[in-house]
Amino acid sequence: MIDLKSAIRSIPDFPKKGIMFRDITTLLLDPEAFHYVIDQMEDFSRGKNVSKILAIESRGFIFGAALADRLGLGFVPIRKTGKLPGEKLRQEYELEYGIDAVEIHADALKPRESILMVDDLVATGGTLEAACKLVEKSGANVSGIAVLVDLAFLPWRQRLAKYDVLSLVKYESE
Amino acid sequence: MIDLKSAIRSIPDFPKKGIMFRDITTLLLDPEAFHYVIDQMEDFSRGKNVSKILAIESRGFIFGAALADRLGLGFVPIRKTGKLPGEKLRQEYELEYGIDAVEIHADALKPRESILMVDDLVATGGTLEAACKLVEKSGANVSGIAVLVDLAFLPWRQRLAKYDVLSLVKYESE
Repeated sequence: MIDLKSAIRSIPDFPKKGIMFRDITTLLLDPEAFHYVIDQMEDFSRGKNVSKILAIESRGFIFGAALADRLGLGFVPIRKTGKLPGEKLRQEYELEYGIDAVEIHADALKPRESILMVDDLVATGGTLEAACKLVEKSGANVSGIAVLVDLAFLPWRQRLAKYDVLSLVKYESE
Repeated sequence: MIDLKSAIRSIPDFPKKGIMFRDITTLLLDPEAFHYVIDQMEDFSRGKNVSKILAIESRGFIFGAALADRLGLGFVPIRKTGKLPGEKLRQEYELEYGIDAVEIHADALKPRESILMVDDLVATGGTLEAACKLVEKSGANVSGIAVLVDLAFLPWRQRLAKYDVLSLVKYESE
C-alpha cells in the first residue's frame, strides 16, 4: 500500500488567491505511485464488463490512456469545445461564472456498451456529470468513474449520486 | 504488423479551410492499433537508458502516459502557458502568426538524466523543438523523440536534426 497523498504537492493560491491546488505532477514523477494509481483503477474496472475507457482533457488523459493500454481497451477522449475534428455531441455545464462545454465524437460509442470514465480530480462534479451525459446521449452506459483526487468537501456526491465512483485520495477540507 | 495509417481518419478543412486533419481518435478506438503504437515506442526506448517520459499537452499525454506505465518510469507533462502550478521554465516558439509557449516544472528533471519526448504528431517541429530546449535548460538530455503521425512534407527534420526521432505513420503530402 502506497501513501498517494504524500506524493501529491499542495500549492496555495493557484490558479487564484484562496485556492489550494493539489498538484499531481509530483505523483507522476514517482513511478511506483503512478503505477499504483493505475493498479487501483484496473482493479475497479474488473467485473464491470467495460469495453472502452473515456477520459477528460487533459490531465484525465494521463490516467485514462495508461489504463486503456493495461486493459487492452479502446480509448476515447472527451475534449473542450472545438478540439475534436469529426461530428460530435456537446454538453454544456455551469461554472461559477458562465458556462463551459465538453464534446465527444458522435461515433465513438456504440449503443448499450459500458464504459469507464477517468479524470484526475473531482471537485464540484460538473465536468464529470456533463461527460457522463455525453455517454448517455450516445446510448452507452457509465459503469463507473475513477479519479485520483477527491475534493470531498465539495458537493459532487449529490451530482454524481447515480454513478459508482472510485476516488483514491480524499481531501476533507481545503 | 498493423497498418496504422488505415486506423487514422483524415478530415478535410479542420481546424481551418485547406488543412487535412489527421484524426488519431479512430486509432485510439482500436485497442490493437493503440497497443501496437505503444509497443513501437517501447522498442524505440530500449538501450537509451531513459529515466523519464515527457509528453506534450494534450494528445501527447495519451501516448506518453501509457508508455511511462509500461516502462515503469516517471511521467512529466509539458504544458501550455499558465497550466502548471509550481515554479517553471518557459520556452517560446513561433507560430505562423504570433508566438506560443510551452512550460515544464523547474524541478521535474535532474541534471544529466536522459528522457524520451513523446507527442502525437510532428509538423513544423516548433513545439517539439521548444520542448526539447526546456529539457536542455533543465540540464537533462533528450535521448529520443517518439511521435505517431509525421507530416513529412513539412520541414521538421531540419529543426530537429540533432535528435533521434521515431515516427510511425508518414504523410508525404497534404
